[in-house]
Amino acid sequence: MIEIKNIGVFTSGGDAPGMNAAIRAVVRTALFNEKKITAIYQGYQGMIEGNFCEMQSRSVSSIIQKGGTILKSARCLEFKTKEGRQTAFENLQKEGIDALVAIGGDGTFTGANLFSLEYGIPVVCIPGTIDNDLNGSDYTLGYDTANNTVIEAIDKIKDTAASHSRLFFVEVMGRDSGCIALNAGVASGAEAILLPEKDTAISELIDMLETAADKNKSSTIVIVAEGDKNGGAYNVEKHVKQKFDYYDTKVSILGHLQRGGSPSSFDRVLATKMGYHAVQELLKGSTRVTIGIRGNKIVTTPLEEALNKSEFKLDEDLVKIAQVMNI
Amino acid sequence: MIEIKNIGVFTSGGDAPGMNAAIRAVVRTALFNEKKITAIYQGYQGMIEGNFCEMQSRSVSSIIQKGGTILKSARCLEFKTKEGRQTAFENLQKEGIDALVAIGGDGTFTGANLFSLEYGIPVVCIPGTIDNDLNGSDYTLGYDTANNTVIEAIDKIKDTAASHSRLFFVEVMGRDSGCIALNAGVASGAEAILLPEKDTAISELIDMLETAADKNKSSTIVIVAEGDKNGGAYNVEKHVKQKFDYYDTKVSILGHLQRGGSPSSFDRVLATKMGYHAVQELLKGSTRVTIGIRGNKIVTTPLEEALNKSEFKLDEDLVKIAQVMNI
Amino acid sequence: MIEIKNIGVFTSGGDAPGMNAAIRAVVRTALFNEKKITAIYQGYQGMIEGNFCEMQSRSVSSIIQKGGTILKSARCLEFKTKEGRQTAFENLQKEGIDALVAIGGDGTFTGANLFSLEYGIPVVCIPGTIDNDLNGSDYTLGYDTANNTVIEAIDKIKDTAASHSRLFFVEVMGRDSGCIALNAGVASGAEAILLPEKDTAISELIDMLETAADKNKSSTIVIVAEGDKNGGAYNVEKHVKQKFDYYDTKVSILGHLQRGGSPSSFDRVLATKMGYHAVQELLKGSTRVTIGIRGNKIVTTPLEEALNKSEFKLDEDLVKIAQVMNI
Amino acid sequence: MIEIKNIGVFTSGGDAPGMNAAIRAVVRTALFNEKKITAIYQGYQGMIEGNFCEMQSRSVSSIIQKGGTILKSARCLEFKTKEGRQTAFENLQKEGIDALVAIGGDGTFTGANLFSLEYGIPVVCIPGTIDNDLNGSDYTLGYDTANNTVIEAIDKIKDTAASHSRLFFVEVMGRDSGCIALNAGVASGAEAILLPEKDTAISELIDMLETAADKNKSSTIVIVAEGDKNGGAYNVEKHVKQKFDYYDTKVSILGHLQRGGSPSSFDRVLATKMGYHAVQELLKGSTRVTIGIRGNKIVTTPLEEALNKSEFKLDEDLVKIAQVMNI
Repeated sequence: MIEIKNIGVFTSGGDAPGMNAAIRAVVRTALFNEKKITAIYQGYQGMIEGNFCEMQSRSVSSIIQKGGTILKSARCLEFKTKEGRQTAFENLQKEGIDALVAIGGDGTFTGANLFSLEYGIPVVCIPGTIDNDLNGSDYTLGYDTANNTVIEAIDKIKDTAASHSRLFFVEVMGRDSGCIALNAGVASGAEAILLPEKDTAISELIDMLETAADKNKSSTIVIVAEGDKNGGAYNVEKHVKQKFDYYDTKVSILGHLQRGGSPSSFDRVLATKMGYHAVQELLKGSTRVTIGIRGNKIVTTPLEEALNKSEFKLDEDLVKIAQVMNI
Repeated sequence: MIEIKNIGVFTSGGDAPGMNAAIRAVVRTALFNEKKITAIYQGYQGMIEGNFCEMQSRSVSSIIQKGGTILKSARCLEFKTKEGRQTAFENLQKEGIDALVAIGGDGTFTGANLFSLEYGIPVVCIPGTIDNDLNGSDYTLGYDTANNTVIEAIDKIKDTAASHSRLFFVEVMGRDSGCIALNAGVASGAEAILLPEKDTAISELIDMLETAADKNKSSTIVIVAEGDKNGGAYNVEKHVKQKFDYYDTKVSILGHLQRGGSPSSFDRVLATKMGYHAVQELLKGSTRVTIGIRGNKIVTTPLEEALNKSEFKLDEDLVKIAQVMNI
Repeated sequence: MIEIKNIGVFTSGGDAPGMNAAIRAVVRTALFNEKKITAIYQGYQGMIEGNFCEMQSRSVSSIIQKGGTILKSARCLEFKTKEGRQTAFENLQKEGIDALVAIGGDGTFTGANLFSLEYGIPVVCIPGTIDNDLNGSDYTLGYDTANNTVIEAIDKIKDTAASHSRLFFVEVMGRDSGCIALNAGVASGAEAILLPEKDTAISELIDMLETAADKNKSSTIVIVAEGDKNGGAYNVEKHVKQKFDYYDTKVSILGHLQRGGSPSSFDRVLATKMGYHAVQELLKGSTRVTIGIRGNKIVTTPLEEALNKSEFKLDEDLVKIAQVMNI
Repeated sequence: MIEIKNIGVFTSGGDAPGMNAAIRAVVRTALFNEKKITAIYQGYQGMIEGNFCEMQSRSVSSIIQKGGTILKSARCLEFKTKEGRQTAFENLQKEGIDALVAIGGDGTFTGANLFSLEYGIPVVCIPGTIDNDLNGSDYTLGYDTANNTVIEAIDKIKDTAASHSRLFFVEVMGRDSGCIALNAGVASGAEAILLPEKDTAISELIDMLETAADKNKSSTIVIVAEGDKNGGAYNVEKHVKQKFDYYDTKVSILGHLQRGGSPSSFDRVLATKMGYHAVQELLKGSTRVTIGIRGNKIVTTPLEEALNKSEFKLDEDLVKIAQVMNI
């Protein structure tokens, strides 16, 4: 094992609250261990362009409470080519960066894994995505904050829905993952939840809405994950209205505000733990693993395993509970 | 002047934060003056259906901080007919209601004015609408809360916009009124604001965006009022993308969450003052007026004048300031 | 095992955000299983006074987002006597209540355990306390919300501290447990954290503050847990000022606002899961256990074990990380 | 009138949310008018020490939403001496600063007025203080945000107060001014409000609490302004407990969190307007005036008049309304 002297840190893919807190922890832990720490701006794009900056402790002052990522993020097609990665590696070598901490979601992990395999550079990943759709961690960074943002928005929508006895279809983020939708549905007491992982026929949804209507509820909320098979909240509304006109209906697409905001306490602490342990793992010789949390324990998981979609499962217990709550 | 014995209170039209605080103040001020106070549920619809309930002081406990309206609201086509209003008046008479406090926007005011003219029942109105588009008051109930809701959402969107150097088109409420858009645009430091009261050509907008791009800003936000002539945020984005591909663009439609939420301190106090003075005005013999605030003074304005759209003017000083801020 | 027909549910001890969400889940899960469900108001006091009310599904509508407890809570000395418990048991029998779900902290658990041992009535507990100081669960209800409340307050304090380059001593709840202090300290990037579980000499604290002062930080925050051995934030300030006058100092005691507020998404979902499983466990024949969460799994732990203070340990990894972050 | 070429801007006294938004507006308006704009750090202290920095448009990017003041603030005894002011003036001359915008409260205004009288340098002030205790403006910067912060804290306290049927004494800022206390008392539905401007005998307070107790309220909140004649919340509690033991009582001192936080929409827009007009007034030749808002109109008032305490009056209408609401 060659001694690490200079760790590069970057964020990539969709941004998530808590990324800044993780960057801060990576920087300070590296400095604590008397290593150089170099910021790579705009993810893989910045590697290819040589967009580097050496960090000091004060470089990450007062960022723990900020949403987004001070290192910026970008999609980078060029890194998917052999030539792009070659340029990236040469730039890292020139800069003296001999290990990486990558913060992001599945695309980030895939790139990091391939790059480390090809060039032998040690990489440890931190799961940063509001979708919570990676194996190897009970929680990804940003998921808790996004859940709070979503329920605060739905609490507001319920005020107006109740004043007019309306039916709202609220679309939340999650193209492949129903985590936010399921969580927000339970937390906001929604009457129905449509998830990418489950086929819910419109007729089945209408049955649920008729049950709710019989109970004379003041408002009715249907949570629709972006990736629901019926094609999103507008389509669901259209289909429901054709067969069920009991209610005045409205659609709300929460959109990108779900990605922003000051991270929750949970995400700040999780990010700090993960950033710390990412550096410690690198220094212990780990590579091609992601940091994760299981209960209160920090764990590592090989990237290949973290990326294995077939292992990622929706919380079926919570799906069942959501139904019981609508008795 | 006949002595008032039983005041009916109702909310009508779109709900707005602060309506509950106003209801509370109306109820308690009536009781303080030893008058009966009767809730009319679902606005004019409830008058026609005789949906009444006598209120006590405790009926309005712990509602000051709640969004929406506990009296519910509804659109009511029947009240637009002579027969509908006749039924409504007969129901009020049966219940002994001899004066009204109406809380709502321009539709509510129009109905209240006509009804009072036809049947001689005294009516005092309270302006409750997030649109701030009524004469006779510097502020309508709910406007301040909606502004805070909007800027909190935009602050979140800016986090993610800055992380990806994106251009966001954020659509806010305001079909005829640019108040929220202008206010939110200034308060969030937006690069451009499209208002229903102003024609902004797409070419002009693109000029502004090019100026912003030259300054190498980390993110760019365009606020689009619902009623902007270019047809809403999605249309604006489409037109801009045809001619200007500097940026990755996204659209966010804030939607109905703008109507909900716990009222701000400003709206709670304003609602309390307005509710108190609405009852005092009724008891002094006023009718067909709206309560308003001018500076720190509560004032009354005849309903006809409050409804005169030609007198309602956008804050041109603020439009100018918004431009200066984008130097 | 005798079939359970009527479950009593109550909250006791200090209130915590999420208690209402747990009550809602208990009520609806009982009804789903076709059991009667009876609210017991004001905890053990209500048992002794026979303060009962049968609950329906609608009795718990729109409470999931509310802080506090709709069932009220009270300290009850009488329940600590044999006679008090005898009266309580007789009242439960009269009401037909043959099983209990108790929501609260260590005092609640102790009472529940004793009562069940004495009278044979099955009891399942739910850990509801912001202190997170019970064995058997990674998280207690209300802890996550309290953490968010605390860091939002500290973020505000940092704004003013930084404007004046001040040193703030912020006292947070936790008489025996440093969980909130440690968590808030890490999440807010505090310069020092004083915990009941650790003796931190004032001289040691002054060393830390001198280090911070050398780094020319814009503000300095010391988090003091209520139960810190130096006697709370005012005492710490007094001792520090005697020896170290580098800074203008201020004290802030966050106090009871830490107990209130709408529960976070995390607490709402956790409460819903715990309430559901508490009833399921009762129906499966469990007694004298607490529901808990370990990672993403709901688990049960015997009450004796949950109450064993010697097993409860501070997160030493996080204590170490907090120090590294202050490099 | 000599042409102004270089405007100095500073904040002084207690910080207030919205100061940064005002600084941004001053900077950009000066640049729009093709003037140099120089930041003076730490208020009058910075003038004496020559702590200056020329500002560009980008120097104030992304500060509109931040609490505190990026220019820092400090108390400065030296500026109260003739020598101190002489040094300050010489430093301004060396730097070429020929006009000033001062943002702060009454101490700031007093200093600015004297300095301008002595040295002839034009000064325009912006009222920035959460206390709202200056003549010449319906609202000072930061007051609206502080009110929101206070009611959010009290809403949380009410959750826990109601769960235990407790009586809370909540102390809010305001040594000489009862504005925050009165406003927060009305907005949170408090049962009693103790103001510096009014003598409320403890016996009178106890009468009010007995009335509240008779109504069987779930919780009782007494707002105590810092400057109340009875000596603050702890003293009030002590006196009340001696004569009235109906309730379990608690005290909460909100403290410095009231000064921080992201400014409300109202404060951001007000700050932007005031900053813009402060520069415009300087360029028009105004001096020794403060900018203010009356209704929706920006106005100016001579500093002497703004500082005249005898003209500043509590909103007596609102005091009366507060009592009516407690029927």
